[in-house]
Amino acid sequence: MASGWFYLSCLVLGSLGSMCILFTVYWMQYWRGGFAWNGSIYMFNWHPVLMVAGMVVFYGGASLVYRLPQSWVGPKLPWKLLHAALHLMAFVLTVVGLVAVFTFHNHGRIANLYTLHSWLGITTVFLFACQWFLGFAVFLLPWASLWLRSLLKPIHVFFGAAILSLSIASVISGINEKLFFISLKNGTRPYSSLPSEAVFANSTGMLVVAFGLLVLYILLASSWKRPEPGILTDRQLLLQLRPGSWPFPVTYMPVASRQPCESW
Amino acid sequence: MASGWFYLSCLVLGSLGSMCILFTVYWMQYWRGGFAWNGSIYMFNWHPVLMVAGMVVFYGGASLVYRLPQSWVGPKLPWKLLHAALHLMAFVLTVVGLVAVFTFHNHGRIANLYTLHSWLGITTVFLFACQWFLGFAVFLLPWASLWLRSLLKPIHVFFGAAILSLSIASVISGINEKLFFISLKNGTRPYSSLPSEAVFANSTGMLVVAFGLLVLYILLASSWKRPEPGILTDRQLLLQLRPGSWPFPVTYMPVASRQPCESW
Repeated sequence: MASGWFYLSCLVLGSLGSMCILFTVYWMQYWRGGFAWNGSIYMFNWHPVLMVAGMVVFYGGASLVYRLPQSWVGPKLPWKLLHAALHLMAFVLTVVGLVAVFTFHNHGRIANLYTLHSWLGITTVFLFACQWFLGFAVFLLPWASLWLRSLLKPIHVFFGAAILSLSIASVISGINEKLFFISLKNGTRPYSSLPSEAVFANSTGMLVVAFGLLVLYILLASSWKRPEPGILTDRQLLLQLRPGSWPFPVTYMPVASRQPCESW
Repeated sequence: MASGWFYLSCLVLGSLGSMCILFTVYWMQYWRGGFAWNGSIYMFNWHPVLMVAGMVVFYGGASLVYRLPQSWVGPKLPWKLLHAALHLMAFVLTVVGLVAVFTFHNHGRIANLYTLHSWLGITTVFLFACQWFLGFAVFLLPWASLWLRSLLKPIHVFFGAAILSLSIASVISGINEKLFFISLKNGTRPYSSLPSEAVFANSTGMLVVAFGLLVLYILLASSWKRPEPGILTDRQLLLQLRPGSWPFPVTYMPVASRQPCESW
């Protein structure tokens, strides 16, 4: 049953994440004139798409690698590599999204980094970079001791969730800000009259919030965490690799105890 | 040592929380003309102050009641009452903050609830109301079974943190939006030239983020959680009420086991 709920959550998450990206693309394509890479406003249009895709959807998906039941057994290294690689993809998308907005600003002689949205956004990307490099250095490279890893792991997990929360705050303030900018243009219905674009963009923001909350729930509050040595609850579910009924190749089984093993 | 870090964190948290409120008051008093309760823009000025105080600072402080080491021993009911009462205070401040903005809008024939900030903000307050009433009904009133409480507790804890995250996103988008509104006024330096008001208000937003992250860290990631039956870690610290050195009246002691007792 637990695995059924897990895969159902993944299905909802995948749908929500896809909708977040597709809604942002549709907003930029249908109401804002589409995309280009030439320093114009159409180059700016890549910014919301890439930040939602990179800092929210890919980042959120990459965070949940260790919640996959398949990751609970066998060597951890391949899952670490997948976790790092997916986050690196998220980071690359994010950086390209930043290049899009900075190039547009510089091309149009518009000031950079003056809004609270930009202050929070750039802080979030900086924290993401630190998190990735620290994670790579401590958890992927072989030099760090178990003691250091166990010390830093809760901090790594916390900042993983914190960065996603800050990303959501950045996206919300960014969409809000963009709708105010649009509202200032001549010939455009004001934001306060809630034109269809504003309803659509507001809804996209609320979708991003729903996606982020579901990621955080699976990450922090569910019982789908990989068991760690020294932490065991009455309700902890441990995976045993045995055939499950379709469509779940493996089945969760509750167990009473677990031996500490290679886990960091 | 653990108690030293805990009280140091509380000191930092108290300072940050006070600064969040004082900075918002100063912004509204010094740059926005102060406060009134007459439907004017000076009535609106209560809105940011009361939302930061209610939905962030009081809410954050109220969330941490069970991290106080004194709450770990003896009957839990007084701490539940304190938790509920502090959250109720936060909720009252929040509702008054909403009354301030709705009255200002209605008085000036300005549309309500059209920005993404307002959509997210009102959703957050609605979730807060549900959370409080569900918490009151299930965890404070005596009718609910231990099974129901243990089922709902992780959800209550998760939504407690989630609502604070959404509050921060609402505050950030609200400050950003206010600075754009101000920038539209004649005779005001544009936001893009970063006048002193914009630097101050942006900094206030970043302070709110710092406060929120520290609350979430203490709430979710620290080892200062009240021990629960069935969950015990190697590093779990359990409080024993014995005299500690000044200024800590009690001392943390690591223990190997704990009997399940009245805990929900």
